[in-house]
Amino acid sequence: MTTPTQTDLNVKALEILRGDASKIEQLIAVQLEHLTLPKCPLYEEVMNMQMFGLSRQIDFAVRAGMINREQGQQIINDLERKLADLFSLIMP
Amino acid sequence: MTTPTQTDLNVKALEILRGDASKIEQLIAVQLEHLTLPKCPLYEEVMNMQMFGLSRQIDFAVRAGMINREQGQQIINDLERKLADLFSLIMP
Repeated sequence: MTTPTQTDLNVKALEILRGDASKIEQLIAVQLEHLTLPKCPLYEEVMNMQMFGLSRQIDFAVRAGMINREQGQQIINDLERKLADLFSLIMP
Repeated sequence: MTTPTQTDLNVKALEILRGDASKIEQLIAVQLEHLTLPKCPLYEEVMNMQMFGLSRQIDFAVRAGMINREQGQQIINDLERKLADLFSLIMP
């Protein structure tokens, strides 16, 4: 089994984390479509839990030396911006 | 910067994940010591959130090829057993 280079690791880690971020975005988008009251506690709890899980994965990837802190923060920022956009579509 | 071998990655990932698992164990042990009612919702919510975060880190490490699924499951099993031991100390 060949040894992955540092770049391979970085690319693979970012691919997984960005994939997970977009899954969270889709999960929230679907919930928003079906929820009459987007402010209902359950919905927020799901989002917080998913964001917490993603942040723990990113923190691990940084500590394991697979990505740097800025790359990780970028993934979180992008997702938060997309979620804010989703929210603004349905908030009067 | 030298490229980490597959073993280096495996060792580093396991070190981080086992370290996180023992932090969760200590967190719960401290809570149990100070909590009169270990069954109180907040306590369980903290434990569930921490376990969820650790499982997401382990899942990421497996998908990134740093550890195998069995190693990850072993970390979760060990922690659950230790938490069960802690619980049995205070449950009548």
